[in-house]
Amino acid sequence: MPAKKATTQSRSRTPGAGANGAGRATRRRDAEVIEAATQLFYERGYTETSVQDVAEALGMLKGSLYYYIDTKEDLLFRVFEEVHEGYDAHLVEWSGRTDLPPLERLSGYLSRVIMDLMSNLAKMSVYYHDMDRLSPERHATILRGRRVHMKFVVGLIEDAQAAGDADPKADARLLANFAFGAVIWTYRWYRPGGDFRRDAIASSCVEFVLNGIRGSAGS
Amino acid sequence: MPAKKATTQSRSRTPGAGANGAGRATRRRDAEVIEAATQLFYERGYTETSVQDVAEALGMLKGSLYYYIDTKEDLLFRVFEEVHEGYDAHLVEWSGRTDLPPLERLSGYLSRVIMDLMSNLAKMSVYYHDMDRLSPERHATILRGRRVHMKFVVGLIEDAQAAGDADPKADARLLANFAFGAVIWTYRWYRPGGDFRRDAIASSCVEFVLNGIRGSAGS
Repeated sequence: MPAKKATTQSRSRTPGAGANGAGRATRRRDAEVIEAATQLFYERGYTETSVQDVAEALGMLKGSLYYYIDTKEDLLFRVFEEVHEGYDAHLVEWSGRTDLPPLERLSGYLSRVIMDLMSNLAKMSVYYHDMDRLSPERHATILRGRRVHMKFVVGLIEDAQAAGDADPKADARLLANFAFGAVIWTYRWYRPGGDFRRDAIASSCVEFVLNGIRGSAGS
Repeated sequence: MPAKKATTQSRSRTPGAGANGAGRATRRRDAEVIEAATQLFYERGYTETSVQDVAEALGMLKGSLYYYIDTKEDLLFRVFEEVHEGYDAHLVEWSGRTDLPPLERLSGYLSRVIMDLMSNLAKMSVYYHDMDRLSPERHATILRGRRVHMKFVVGLIEDAQAAGDADPKADARLLANFAFGAVIWTYRWYRPGGDFRRDAIASSCVEFVLNGIRGSAGS
């Protein structure tokens, strides 16, 4: 099976594959599979969901679903990959904005992250809840991916400290963890249709975080 | 069985019960049971742990463990109750300090919460990870307990806003959520023996949160 899966993956991820209708159809089906798995993992829990359940939600035979995956954990990892694709795009966008001061770049990046989080609540809940369900290798892959983001944020805070825009006494790594905490925790309390609009939450959270990082340097 | 369990619970929780040796022994055994369950839920996951596993870890027969509980979920709920007992003590302590300005009380309360969190990592990880495993009634009980803490923190922020010590434009409920996020997220990245001492993390986190809440009012 691994060979078949590799083929499926490379087909659906080769940029040129979308040039023909078959490639687009496969990618669309791929996205539907991840979407259905995400929803079930979110509602019932990863342990309680079987590949059979995902197949049923898609109106597919279990055998056909195995065209896309080898194991249930493959489905979980695809959810994780999708989250990282989104997050990585924000990082690429804002690491490119070297024309802006560090805290403006941090503000732009965190705004994207928190909006992404609130817009993809089921996926993000699975992402932050079920990491330990991944195989050790995939777990390590996700951790490596996260470290790139941590390094980016720590770097921006250190630059801001050097420029006198952030409290130089605080450790940039700690500040980065607190910042991610304030942002990421949103997936635990935010529910669509509540008292606050997403953009109001995002801008208030980013302001809170930047004030926290600036400290007395912001005065 | 419910009657037996109720007896056990009331025995182990009646303040006067400790006056005799039998009461103390029961309470100690009670604590050991919760401790063993916590550790297994943390290491293997709640779903993957059986009552038999907990009994084995304690060197007890499964039947004897059923003297303390009726179901595995009882064990989980006891973990939740312990966490709330700890958190509630911090709330009682700092809601009593009406002699202090609101942000000092908030600072004192949050310091206790984050130290508690880092000192009880296994228990806190189960608490924040496995809430959805509780029965609907117990889930609701825990939510009610949390709301008291949220109300306390929102009240302190509103008092600080009224006193001109916190940004009056930000919504106190949002600020409280961001503050809890920065504090609680610590259980996800903090590991004992790392680069930072717990008290350094606690004071840095509380300073970050207070700067975030003060905003421009802090200048």
